[in-house]
Amino acid sequence: MKPMKISEAVVRRLPVYLQVLNDLHMRDVQTVSSQELGNRLDLNPAQIRKDLAYFGDFGRKGIGYDVTYLIEKIKQILKLDQPLNVALVGAGNLGRALCNYNMYLKDNMKITAVFDINPSMIGVSINGLTVLPMEKLAETIQDLSIRIGIITVPAAEAQNVADQFVEAGVDGILNFAPTILRVQDQVRIHYANFTTELMSLAYYLNEEENEDEADLD
Amino acid sequence: MKPMKISEAVVRRLPVYLQVLNDLHMRDVQTVSSQELGNRLDLNPAQIRKDLAYFGDFGRKGIGYDVTYLIEKIKQILKLDQPLNVALVGAGNLGRALCNYNMYLKDNMKITAVFDINPSMIGVSINGLTVLPMEKLAETIQDLSIRIGIITVPAAEAQNVADQFVEAGVDGILNFAPTILRVQDQVRIHYANFTTELMSLAYYLNEEENEDEADLD
Repeated sequence: MKPMKISEAVVRRLPVYLQVLNDLHMRDVQTVSSQELGNRLDLNPAQIRKDLAYFGDFGRKGIGYDVTYLIEKIKQILKLDQPLNVALVGAGNLGRALCNYNMYLKDNMKITAVFDINPSMIGVSINGLTVLPMEKLAETIQDLSIRIGIITVPAAEAQNVADQFVEAGVDGILNFAPTILRVQDQVRIHYANFTTELMSLAYYLNEEENEDEADLD
Repeated sequence: MKPMKISEAVVRRLPVYLQVLNDLHMRDVQTVSSQELGNRLDLNPAQIRKDLAYFGDFGRKGIGYDVTYLIEKIKQILKLDQPLNVALVGAGNLGRALCNYNMYLKDNMKITAVFDINPSMIGVSINGLTVLPMEKLAETIQDLSIRIGIITVPAAEAQNVADQFVEAGVDGILNFAPTILRVQDQVRIHYANFTTELMSLAYYLNEEENEDEADLD
């Protein structure tokens, strides 16, 4: 198969499709239409057909998509059919929550090493992972072929941790600290920020009031 | 100003713009071009100009956008100039992390009530908030005019909590549990799922390998 450049928006939607498809698979649903997927995801069915058409002709008219086949295909596209080791720095509440969430990280994607700056955290066990000191970061990332780093430290320490991740050779960083990071171009950063989710939710809550204002015009 | 229907994609980008603008504001930057915003956000400058043009003509050719003015305008559009009270159910590691994150929730948006199902958690104080029993949910949501609920319970309990939130009258839910929720159409659900962020990151990490494969064709 020829590789192709997939737009960022599509790449961001694929894991969401995968989540819904896994949910359907668990309920023993065998086929799904773009209409049903659209209803579940609040997306236009035409958009869904277009997104999935990127990767070949999966759907069959009047029958829909084969759930198992589509799951396999999306995993393959996202390269989730390969092991993906992840390191996490910051064993506070959020870091611990993410480690405990590890069991939901299917498809070979696992947090395999946890680090903290605080000496009192070193050696503590979280969901089977022992918290390591920062001095072990570079060595562990090499040894375990870790390619992604997760940052769950306070904002003030995040850039320093990012620099150490980049130095140690990760390709991508998922940053939970509420700050913008500056790294070399070849390292990709995604921001996981629940504030932005809350904010966009707020827009919709206030729609009714918008309309009331319009009536007064 | 006439109200308008803004696309979901734009609504999702506005908080991200706001974050970058707040960051610039903290660094005493007074104006910013769509090109600079584009560099910081990995977005096409034309896309940014189009998004912001929705709300009037903010930018000035050769000068760019006034940072303070744009911040105020986006807050207004997202209705973040009004108080927005949020309730959280599930005082585990993730719930506690979000409560501790409360100070970063600027712009009147605050977690003002925390609940848990586990009796041993009731009465515990987290960042100034006392964990309440679920029996207090409906009453507290009324009393504090809470419009958004955050769910940080295990997947198996999430639907039950969502039903109670909807019953109590919230307009929106931010769900962190790794499961799809079913609610009435008028209640909006956003999913905060770090798995999807990790998965889309994985796509980019593997791009080089994609290209290697292409060479073998």
